[in-house]
Amino acid sequence: MKIKKLADVPRETVTMDGVLGATKQLVLGSADGVPNFSLRVFTVEKGGHTPCHSHPSEHLNYVISGRGELRDADGAAHALAPGDFAFVSPHETHQFRNAGDEPFVFVCAVPRQYE
Amino acid sequence: MKIKKLADVPRETVTMDGVLGATKQLVLGSADGVPNFSLRVFTVEKGGHTPCHSHPSEHLNYVISGRGELRDADGAAHALAPGDFAFVSPHETHQFRNAGDEPFVFVCAVPRQYE
Repeated sequence: MKIKKLADVPRETVTMDGVLGATKQLVLGSADGVPNFSLRVFTVEKGGHTPCHSHPSEHLNYVISGRGELRDADGAAHALAPGDFAFVSPHETHQFRNAGDEPFVFVCAVPRQYE
Repeated sequence: MKIKKLADVPRETVTMDGVLGATKQLVLGSADGVPNFSLRVFTVEKGGHTPCHSHPSEHLNYVISGRGELRDADGAAHALAPGDFAFVSPHETHQFRNAGDEPFVFVCAVPRQYE
């Protein structure tokens, strides 16, 4: 078994097209021996967002802190508050945006093959 | 996409052998269309614990609130605080215990086939 504190996990700037003000921490992934899926944590700064995109892998999310929104393929914004869970289906267009003044921090679980 | 608040998810008492004072909420699972893995939330009351057991499925955990410990096959206790992540490998003996005065609440991700 392995226990990790988020503060000890290296943080990298997300440089993908369509990203603004986002960093990622790969908390549990292949290097830890996970057999099926990985846990990452994204921090999106005030005014920032992840790309508006889709991909074959689903997302399962848990909001740690801050205020955010999850935009769907029609551009509609669904509010996300601390303690909320979200599920983005495979191939579904989505974008996470910071909708507050503090960093928006959330867990994003994906199949290990995705990351 | 789907967004859920934990308070809206039905809670069931865990009746498995070796459990004391634990409830479970299946936040995202097969009924939600998850293709690969599920997210459950366990609440372990003061003095309570999950079974000391092992199984072929791994656990990926995130601690929401309270103080807990993760006991390994040797009975050694590893402290868990809010914001901590844990990984229990397949077939690894483990037990979650409340180590504080408040409910110990944590996310437990498993392969969809497990739940």
